Amino acid sequence: MTFLIVRDRSGLAQAVLTDPAAIRAAALPEETVIRVEGTVTASRQAPGGAEITAPVITPLSGPAAPPPFDLYRPAVTASLPAILDGAPTTLRHPLLRAPFEIAAASVAGFRGALAGLGFTEIHTPKIVESATESGANVFGIDYFGKPAYLAQSPQFYKQAMVGVFERVFEVGPVFRAEPHDTARHLAQYTSLDAELGFITDHQDVMALLREVIAAMVAAVGRNSRYPAELLGLTLPQVPGQIPRIHFADAQELLAGSGQDPRGEPDLAPAHERWLSEWALREHGSEFLFVTGYPMAKRPFYTHPDPARPGYSNGFDLLFRGMELVTGGQRLHRHEDYLAALACCGEDPRPYAGYLQVFAHGMPPHGGFAIGLERWTARLTGAANVRSVTLFPRDARRLSP
Amino acid sequence: MTFLIVRDRSGLAQAVLTDPAAIRAAALPEETVIRVEGTVTASRQAPGGAEITAPVITPLSGPAAPPPFDLYRPAVTASLPAILDGAPTTLRHPLLRAPFEIAAASVAGFRGALAGLGFTEIHTPKIVESATESGANVFGIDYFGKPAYLAQSPQFYKQAMVGVFERVFEVGPVFRAEPHDTARHLAQYTSLDAELGFITDHQDVMALLREVIAAMVAAVGRNSRYPAELLGLTLPQVPGQIPRIHFADAQELLAGSGQDPRGEPDLAPAHERWLSEWALREHGSEFLFVTGYPMAKRPFYTHPDPARPGYSNGFDLLFRGMELVTGGQRLHRHEDYLAALACCGEDPRPYAGYLQVFAHGMPPHGGFAIGLERWTARLTGAANVRSVTLFPRDARRLSP
Repeated sequence: MTFLIVRDRSGLAQAVLTDPAAIRAAALPEETVIRVEGTVTASRQAPGGAEITAPVITPLSGPAAPPPFDLYRPAVTASLPAILDGAPTTLRHPLLRAPFEIAAASVAGFRGALAGLGFTEIHTPKIVESATESGANVFGIDYFGKPAYLAQSPQFYKQAMVGVFERVFEVGPVFRAEPHDTARHLAQYTSLDAELGFITDHQDVMALLREVIAAMVAAVGRNSRYPAELLGLTLPQVPGQIPRIHFADAQELLAGSGQDPRGEPDLAPAHERWLSEWALREHGSEFLFVTGYPMAKRPFYTHPDPARPGYSNGFDLLFRGMELVTGGQRLHRHEDYLAALACCGEDPRPYAGYLQVFAHGMPPHGGFAIGLERWTARLTGAANVRSVTLFPRDARRLSP
Repeated sequence: MTFLIVRDRSGLAQAVLTDPAAIRAAALPEETVIRVEGTVTASRQAPGGAEITAPVITPLSGPAAPPPFDLYRPAVTASLPAILDGAPTTLRHPLLRAPFEIAAASVAGFRGALAGLGFTEIHTPKIVESATESGANVFGIDYFGKPAYLAQSPQFYKQAMVGVFERVFEVGPVFRAEPHDTARHLAQYTSLDAELGFITDHQDVMALLREVIAAMVAAVGRNSRYPAELLGLTLPQVPGQIPRIHFADAQELLAGSGQDPRGEPDLAPAHERWLSEWALREHGSEFLFVTGYPMAKRPFYTHPDPARPGYSNGFDLLFRGMELVTGGQRLHRHEDYLAALACCGEDPRPYAGYLQVFAHGMPPHGGFAIGLERWTARLTGAANVRSVTLFPRDARRLSP
């Protein structure tokens, strides 16, 4: 008697071979694609709780070459570079595949929540004329002999489309020529963007974001039970009110803990980790909003806090120790944009196409962007975003 | 008494002003964003069947600059370039906005159908190492000092992911450095891609495509009633069996009609129009599958028709006179890929990364790609795909 373990997208199953001809027919290298027809019988010892008896086996491809490492072993001991180099094959391992099923469920939850709230899905250009949003870290392209750039975000387009649809979202690639090799940066990642009009201030954006995150977690629980079990995940609870702390108060807290970041206009990764732990300890929440980031470190389109000079209506959402989402209220008056650019000493001319729409009347609006790979990494406990990116791109990796 | 017409994403509404102070407050330029609070009363004469009485009007932005053309007029007489140049503002016109709502509903239908059939959504790299798929019409990019290219399709990645998830789909941008200025080509468009494994042949792919198209039409009928009415659309019936004709038979038919395309390996746009009319006349269908395209004009990964040398298991779906979808069965055996490349005299080395996965066992598979803008143009009767693209990109247009 010989056992044959077959794998498909639903999991593993065991076929029991007794006939010598069938045993010979099944003597194929691992990963060879076969069709198995037989009788399915409940069996408590078998993987998946069932086994196939009297199977007829038909190969659907030639004998497979050995994969980069044994995909039939329950654990994965290969290094990340080995996994990534062989991704078309290595991701067949159920443990390596699972995070992508969780990512797909998360995106479905994101879209479902927004579509239910009347948001319209948009598709915006990834090739843009000027590298206005940040200047640095853009990829240049040869566009019919003219210089052009890969879009670092759909920021300007999604804002403009608030004037058309009032509420919009986009799921798409964004590009950053990020030279640093860190566990949380990629040259291309998937950005889950939303923007909505007729808000009072950033609090409305934060309330929306809370709904969206809750829907993403719920969709993972609903659609990805098997991959979540496989990875042994504990899904986070999303509190009805996510705790929030003002940037200045967060710095005071950090100062009281022996660090002293006061005067710095941003939080360092270590500060984000400390604040996440604090939120879990004090509020029992794995999520924490940090509000009121200083204007100095936010992009020029950020709306200031009218009550607190120097601080903004911009926020970050921390999740399990890391910044997961950046969002906020944006400027919406044309004159405010001109003033903001003048204030940072920027020439408004390259922004003419962007600013045009604000001259024609725009409602108060705001939005956010969630990095899908960071979300999936936090949710699955992956130490590196590359583990949850199908074919990551970075300064050293352009294939497969 | 003065009437004020207010517009939001749900349509138009009329406010009735009688108080002189309110009339003065409402004397704002068109497109100025306002909040209106008042009493809503049914009124058969008013646009939308209701009017707002005793309104209190609060401006939410400064007085708006005049839009490129009057957005309050029911008809649009502006030229396409004028519409596109001012897109952030001009798309506010309900008639110009409507196609994008129909596109969004279509994409929701596409995803809904595939998710319901167990397909996993993927996100693949848009920056690739080699311009293998067609060689011509690729955009080059400077990737950290190395040459790279923008992906012309997710073809290779979606095929590889059949080995991981069995059934995958992707909605994302694809890039073609298409120098020709036609009404149906764009430098960036949105591709709705699907690929599935364990098929018998291309007939399984065509059956899936029929389900997907039916779900897209149904989603438009369900989610976009108002934009569809505004545009006066007649949604197509999707037959339970979409009529199909073999490429060779289509050429015979065309020959009988006075044209003679026999010997040509592809159909010209005029032939596609003629065949579409024929399908409507003979089969009452706005859709027609043309199967068995000659191998000579299909990409090297196309599976040949085992029964008919020279012809392939590749198909196109014509809709209202135009090729809307290309699809087919792909090769799945490693040795077949090597033979196919040798046969066209191609060096297999640049394809090494792509071919790797077929050595490790792949099931018979196939798939298709729908161009979202072509679909939306056909559905809404737009003469040019640029009318249904938020911010089109072509050889002459890189902004807004």
